[in-house]
Amino acid sequence: MIIIGERINGMFTDIGEALRNKDPKPLQFWATKQEEGGAHYLDVNSGPAIPTGERPEAYKWMVQVIQEVSDLPLTLDSTNYNAIEEGLKLCKRPAMINSVPVERAKIERVFAMAIQYNAQVIGLTMDNKGIPKDAENRVAFALELVAAADEFGLYMEDLFIDPLILPCNVAQEHAPEVLEALRQIKTLADPAPRTVLGLSNVSQKSPDRRLINRTYLAMAMACGLDAAIMDANDDALIDVAATCEILLNKSVYADSYLKVFRTR
Amino acid sequence: MIIIGERINGMFTDIGEALRNKDPKPLQFWATKQEEGGAHYLDVNSGPAIPTGERPEAYKWMVQVIQEVSDLPLTLDSTNYNAIEEGLKLCKRPAMINSVPVERAKIERVFAMAIQYNAQVIGLTMDNKGIPKDAENRVAFALELVAAADEFGLYMEDLFIDPLILPCNVAQEHAPEVLEALRQIKTLADPAPRTVLGLSNVSQKSPDRRLINRTYLAMAMACGLDAAIMDANDDALIDVAATCEILLNKSVYADSYLKVFRTR
Repeated sequence: MIIIGERINGMFTDIGEALRNKDPKPLQFWATKQEEGGAHYLDVNSGPAIPTGERPEAYKWMVQVIQEVSDLPLTLDSTNYNAIEEGLKLCKRPAMINSVPVERAKIERVFAMAIQYNAQVIGLTMDNKGIPKDAENRVAFALELVAAADEFGLYMEDLFIDPLILPCNVAQEHAPEVLEALRQIKTLADPAPRTVLGLSNVSQKSPDRRLINRTYLAMAMACGLDAAIMDANDDALIDVAATCEILLNKSVYADSYLKVFRTR
Repeated sequence: MIIIGERINGMFTDIGEALRNKDPKPLQFWATKQEEGGAHYLDVNSGPAIPTGERPEAYKWMVQVIQEVSDLPLTLDSTNYNAIEEGLKLCKRPAMINSVPVERAKIERVFAMAIQYNAQVIGLTMDNKGIPKDAENRVAFALELVAAADEFGLYMEDLFIDPLILPCNVAQEHAPEVLEALRQIKTLADPAPRTVLGLSNVSQKSPDRRLINRTYLAMAMACGLDAAIMDANDDALIDVAATCEILLNKSVYADSYLKVFRTR
């Protein structure tokens, strides 16, 4: 299970302010803290804190200050592909591009960048008309992403497909469809593409957020989830990820398996 | 999700003593307490506390004293079918027979009893040679149970198939096979048979029992688990069951869904 720490995002007040003030400390604090929590990658997202025209410069700065304190690979998260490209140029370790929908011009840009910079790609099961309601149409989009990986020569395990979970308090019917989509996506190619979710989205504005997050994580891992952008400092959530790895027989059981998972 | 309370079992010291002393109070205490916790059925198992020849009398007594304090339906749990039959005669509500393996003489006895007493049946995916290692052979046994339900005229949704989870600390490779078996069992007939697990078995002798139980419950529910014999007084476990029902879109989301689940 690949844990992508979600916290360096301009939507959070402290990061938004840090971006506006060019203060590296909050970014560096969360880089270190998420690595300690159990993150394997760090998501990097300016959010709306930076005007879109200034994002290429901002992503350069973000990548630099984060890499001063952490060796974790980065997930460059933006709809501004110029910003992602500026970031990619500076990444010391192969990064992940987050994300590309099923739209031809964007696929061409993103997959070409991925090849050029030896990056992985998160592909979304949506197009410019939005997110499908059912598993079937999510999987149809996933197949287009698989075909694109094939066309551009991206190694299939470097493609992470995100079937897009929505908040269960307003779009409850999507949650089982995403589970079914996860299951089917793993059958689309051999080797299979990998799968990812923006986990915290499932619990937006619910009072029992952490319970919903960790329960859905276990359900999704049972259906083939390989990675999640999530709260890497929620210990109960990390414990569930560790336990799922045991119960899927992907890590060898030891009584101390929770500790082992964290020290890997 | 059907929660079958596991606690009235002679393997627990207090119940074992109560059975030997014919003291109804511990049985009645746990009947009430499990109902309060969230149980929909009560498992009734003398365990080795009662010699097998005395079990028919013991099950009559157990059913009687439990029904004095609880209206919940009972899951009569024994390898002694005479004991189960004596219990069935006294059950006020349709009961569940726990359990029958894939052995012809036992299938004939149990399915005939189920029809006679309007009971449900838990069928095990094993024969007299033991429990298969993989999903495929578990499903092959499940198909024989489906055929038996058909042959004896048991309504398919009254057949609960148990693919037999083993402790993950000694038989870790079984855990993902059971998940796959659950998924496939739901495709064997239309309407599908239902599925059940003796959940606590997965965590036998592990230090993190409750975490393992609730994580595996979520994973199993994502794969089609309909019922579990489990600790009905583990609040965190009940909360996971409630959350899975929301995330499978089987109960309608409300901010108070945890409370709603308990008061159903």
